[in-house]
Amino acid sequence: MIIVMKATATENQIETVAKRLQDLGFKTILNRGDVMTVIAAIGDKRLIETESLESMEGVKQILPIQEPFKMAGREAHPQDTVIRFNNGVSIGGNSNFVVMAGPCSIESDPNLLFQIADTVKASGAQFLRGGAFKPRTSPYDFQGLEEEGLKQLAAARERTGLLVITEVMDSQEVPLVAEYSDILQVGTRNMQNFKLLKAVGRQNKPVMLKRGLSATVREFLLAAEHILYQGNEQVILCERGIRGYDNTFTRNVLDLAIVPVLKRTSHLPVIVDPSHATGHRYLVPPMVNASVFSGADGVMMEVHYDPDKALSDGAQSLTLDQFKAVMENLNKVTAFYKELKQPECLINA
Amino acid sequence: MIIVMKATATENQIETVAKRLQDLGFKTILNRGDVMTVIAAIGDKRLIETESLESMEGVKQILPIQEPFKMAGREAHPQDTVIRFNNGVSIGGNSNFVVMAGPCSIESDPNLLFQIADTVKASGAQFLRGGAFKPRTSPYDFQGLEEEGLKQLAAARERTGLLVITEVMDSQEVPLVAEYSDILQVGTRNMQNFKLLKAVGRQNKPVMLKRGLSATVREFLLAAEHILYQGNEQVILCERGIRGYDNTFTRNVLDLAIVPVLKRTSHLPVIVDPSHATGHRYLVPPMVNASVFSGADGVMMEVHYDPDKALSDGAQSLTLDQFKAVMENLNKVTAFYKELKQPECLINA
Amino acid sequence: MIIVMKATATENQIETVAKRLQDLGFKTILNRGDVMTVIAAIGDKRLIETESLESMEGVKQILPIQEPFKMAGREAHPQDTVIRFNNGVSIGGNSNFVVMAGPCSIESDPNLLFQIADTVKASGAQFLRGGAFKPRTSPYDFQGLEEEGLKQLAAARERTGLLVITEVMDSQEVPLVAEYSDILQVGTRNMQNFKLLKAVGRQNKPVMLKRGLSATVREFLLAAEHILYQGNEQVILCERGIRGYDNTFTRNVLDLAIVPVLKRTSHLPVIVDPSHATGHRYLVPPMVNASVFSGADGVMMEVHYDPDKALSDGAQSLTLDQFKAVMENLNKVTAFYKELKQPECLINA
Amino acid sequence: MIIVMKATATENQIETVAKRLQDLGFKTILNRGDVMTVIAAIGDKRLIETESLESMEGVKQILPIQEPFKMAGREAHPQDTVIRFNNGVSIGGNSNFVVMAGPCSIESDPNLLFQIADTVKASGAQFLRGGAFKPRTSPYDFQGLEEEGLKQLAAARERTGLLVITEVMDSQEVPLVAEYSDILQVGTRNMQNFKLLKAVGRQNKPVMLKRGLSATVREFLLAAEHILYQGNEQVILCERGIRGYDNTFTRNVLDLAIVPVLKRTSHLPVIVDPSHATGHRYLVPPMVNASVFSGADGVMMEVHYDPDKALSDGAQSLTLDQFKAVMENLNKVTAFYKELKQPECLINA
Repeated sequence: MIIVMKATATENQIETVAKRLQDLGFKTILNRGDVMTVIAAIGDKRLIETESLESMEGVKQILPIQEPFKMAGREAHPQDTVIRFNNGVSIGGNSNFVVMAGPCSIESDPNLLFQIADTVKASGAQFLRGGAFKPRTSPYDFQGLEEEGLKQLAAARERTGLLVITEVMDSQEVPLVAEYSDILQVGTRNMQNFKLLKAVGRQNKPVMLKRGLSATVREFLLAAEHILYQGNEQVILCERGIRGYDNTFTRNVLDLAIVPVLKRTSHLPVIVDPSHATGHRYLVPPMVNASVFSGADGVMMEVHYDPDKALSDGAQSLTLDQFKAVMENLNKVTAFYKELKQPECLINA
Repeated sequence: MIIVMKATATENQIETVAKRLQDLGFKTILNRGDVMTVIAAIGDKRLIETESLESMEGVKQILPIQEPFKMAGREAHPQDTVIRFNNGVSIGGNSNFVVMAGPCSIESDPNLLFQIADTVKASGAQFLRGGAFKPRTSPYDFQGLEEEGLKQLAAARERTGLLVITEVMDSQEVPLVAEYSDILQVGTRNMQNFKLLKAVGRQNKPVMLKRGLSATVREFLLAAEHILYQGNEQVILCERGIRGYDNTFTRNVLDLAIVPVLKRTSHLPVIVDPSHATGHRYLVPPMVNASVFSGADGVMMEVHYDPDKALSDGAQSLTLDQFKAVMENLNKVTAFYKELKQPECLINA
Repeated sequence: MIIVMKATATENQIETVAKRLQDLGFKTILNRGDVMTVIAAIGDKRLIETESLESMEGVKQILPIQEPFKMAGREAHPQDTVIRFNNGVSIGGNSNFVVMAGPCSIESDPNLLFQIADTVKASGAQFLRGGAFKPRTSPYDFQGLEEEGLKQLAAARERTGLLVITEVMDSQEVPLVAEYSDILQVGTRNMQNFKLLKAVGRQNKPVMLKRGLSATVREFLLAAEHILYQGNEQVILCERGIRGYDNTFTRNVLDLAIVPVLKRTSHLPVIVDPSHATGHRYLVPPMVNASVFSGADGVMMEVHYDPDKALSDGAQSLTLDQFKAVMENLNKVTAFYKELKQPECLINA
Repeated sequence: MIIVMKATATENQIETVAKRLQDLGFKTILNRGDVMTVIAAIGDKRLIETESLESMEGVKQILPIQEPFKMAGREAHPQDTVIRFNNGVSIGGNSNFVVMAGPCSIESDPNLLFQIADTVKASGAQFLRGGAFKPRTSPYDFQGLEEEGLKQLAAARERTGLLVITEVMDSQEVPLVAEYSDILQVGTRNMQNFKLLKAVGRQNKPVMLKRGLSATVREFLLAAEHILYQGNEQVILCERGIRGYDNTFTRNVLDLAIVPVLKRTSHLPVIVDPSHATGHRYLVPPMVNASVFSGADGVMMEVHYDPDKALSDGAQSLTLDQFKAVMENLNKVTAFYKELKQPECLINA
């Protein structure tokens, strides 16, 4: 951390700041320039709030150097994290590109989920998604089948061999959802529900953390850090669109460039969810393929046997036929991508 | 709700849409124009997801008419909600402008909280704020004293007669926090933690709901609706700054115009928090006074006996002396505002 | 256009609104419901400001139906616009994917531009880009070589056979830039410089219009409409990143999903500029390839013989070697994309 | 400027960076720490693009220290700029709070402008605003009366003694507009039309520069710097709302806290335009009063003799009666504000 003192800072102010830094456990080096004095504070910035230093007398600016995510960052953990499942499927590193697909919400008739699951399996996807606990903007919207939905998911797994992923919304429900699901999903609206992050961090199922609606890269990785810090190293990041200023044509803004940013900054796997990001099914197929080239480790898609009748997110769900067509192309695209040489001069660009 | 059919929609498509609306419980009126057919659907839009209609064949656009917040909206509840406390203090309607002040986090020595509380009380504020459970972006930041902090708050209340407000972060902690606090605060990051909203909606202490970082007016009022829907009518809204694209000079963007928007759209009281909105103490005094003229029912401010040493939010906390000066001016401003005539032609503008 | 009257609107108010609509040239149809009256106004909404209707007594809401871009929209112009150049190169429709590449700014020694141009040509790109008039945030930054730069571009065209594209910043400079350049670029900061839009609309060179930093799809297409309206039908749209709330890791947010949105809504060609969108060279290669799958008609990239010494945008410029490597991959990617079957069920999704 | 080298930077890389800085005219001081080397570069950062340094090998981060606005900033120009007019009116410093009011667009019948102007004058405002050249999102909207409108403004000035302010949209029109108007307004969409900024910077009428829709404080002040740099010191800044993510209830987000930010960072006067910021007339009166307490030097408001018939911005225009009521209150508010003591401990907060 670099503390820049004002040109007008007195000797006394400089010493007070340096003293406080030393009290906080930093080693300090003073660099007295012609115009101003700069204090370099060597130590773990994560221990303090820089804002409080900023308001000390004589301080002009605090310039952080080290990124605050020790465990999520790639610096101290250069190799890719790979999440492995019992059936041999894995996510991250050199694993195959994975696909998570299914309906937004699980609805009452289990046969309908089975119908979707059969198509998802047949098309070559690895994960069945489906919401049992639903975060809904309005209390008047369908809130999910809860445990009944979890049971349907488990039955569909039994039937198809697909792994399942579903959302957990509250710290109290973590044990219940963990009993049924292969991956626990923490939703966008809960990205900074720190009690939930801690709760999923204390159990040993993989967690997929969706980016908050207006979360910065730092906030996103620090939310992952909360989970890692509790001892759970199996964290997957998911880009699902951020809040834009124009929702007339798309629901959110898919921030695809964050994928290579995250892959460079962190070792955690990254999944893209173009269904929630765009909100319109015609935008899903191009964005699925684009995700492959962004370097993502997989995608999540919404599929429904009859989107017009879906209890939620119908407009962004693919039909079964569309899903099959998307998967057929996607298999070609991922095969092509794998063959594409990544020249040295670009990898280290 | 108005469903606009495409110019190319077939008779069959129009009938299918009308039939589906009727199945959903709407009364439909067809308006066949020269260019296109428009279907008016009379009934409670809140029962359905308009998106699923949007993807039906032949549909061009869905135009919602009714706002989806039945209980938080002013239409069905024209009179202001007033939250009343046992000591005679009230918030909303024609109540006096209230002030909630205190440190961001409660720290280990109770005497320091008492020192702040004494100043808060002496300056004429009604509420002591202070965080016991702290939502922190990083797991390495101070996470709060938890129950120990709640006890300090209760002791400060005992000592000063101030009412207290503090944040609850998780559904499991609602009973504990409700035991100590006069108002339960739901923080920005939890505005759409629906399990928490339901939990605070099922107990009978007033709840102050802070606006999410990028929450629209609709999302904000629907989050309030979740609480109201559970039976708790004592909801206070709090504007605390939204995410902007420039955090070099301010932490967030204080959206002061949302105050008159909320006062017109809803009957719930509105509090402004200029400390979190701006992030810099020199911006707090002007924004406190500006809040009065926005029509807010009160403000929340961060005050610390020594902001440079605060464990959180030091840069935006006022010193005790500054707080006294702000309050002295604020008392004059609110008195002046009360006398200022609001001409008829402006009230109904 | 649909005018929804308030439930409390009087007969007199309804008639006043209907009368005003008729005066404005609309045919009106009244739909008197149990709860409210809805007026359908048939005619060209583009003639009026809906806001003024919104403030009439008794009016609850105005719901526009028709998109306001008559010439830029696909409804009245279903076939793709293709921009053709004398050397056989074309942009849009079924044309080959085009590449525009070159330095951000043209610098004093023409040999340096030639060195870049030779590589651009040899790698298979069709257009040389380079700034002669530079919009610079600060007056202290390099402002461009102006006509001297245009001459260098023309010389590089002569030498390599590349077409050239360069920015015009002011209505007065349109004739000068049009004399030298094959495409006139209107920059992000000038997307709503309406005098400039009119000026480029009145000459007959193709125009590439870059999306404004926070422009909605509607504003973007209406800016194009300004050019088309003056008689110039050769308009190319360019997505170059929008303002986000986090510029720590990327300069802007590349909104790749806008490409299929624009292709569906408009008939105009769409180019993606990942250099300006991301601001970091390591993000350019993945986003170039992702652009192909978004359905874009081409990309624009910044290339420099020595980015560390570039007078502007060095951090986002590729080196010549990196550019060659990107192009080698891109040629494979576009060939693969062309072969990829677009199933019927996805095209009409 | 501080250049932080990577922990892995070689001696050679450090020297190359230091050498390049020296070539650029900086004095360099090396601070070799245990973990990393930090180079302090003393000199005028405005001369270079920091991005190009960022991409040099071994460089981790560039930390700018000095703000890049030399002329617009308060550091080198501590006293407030006051703009003075021949009739004794002034803006900025300790001048009285000013009001600029009038219709959005000037329409064909001059008597209607006179009617508005008479009310504006009688209510105590100092400036008549009115658009003759109109920046319009759509080419189908009313584009303004151009010189005919300027003549009406001049006639209204003659009649009432009001000063006039109107927008100039293009560098070519600067001399014409300057002939008629007392202040030249540069609109939001042209905040970074650098040719226009230069043109208004080279004549000697005061210029009011409106903040761009998503302009940061730095970009805003650098746009002002472009004008100042050309020799025109009479620049007024205007906050008029920024792009938000929710335009259902307000048109833009009024960023009132930017007023004290600008007053502290710069010496230039600041005007607030709550009409364009909010887009709804009922929001104008509270935000006008709030602006006074933000420390603004004045406000701009839209007023129309019959807003329902206004050719533009009717929904946000006050009626003449409403304007009178707003002014009556405003006069009391500004008088009260002037009396309000600003305690020392707040001024230097």
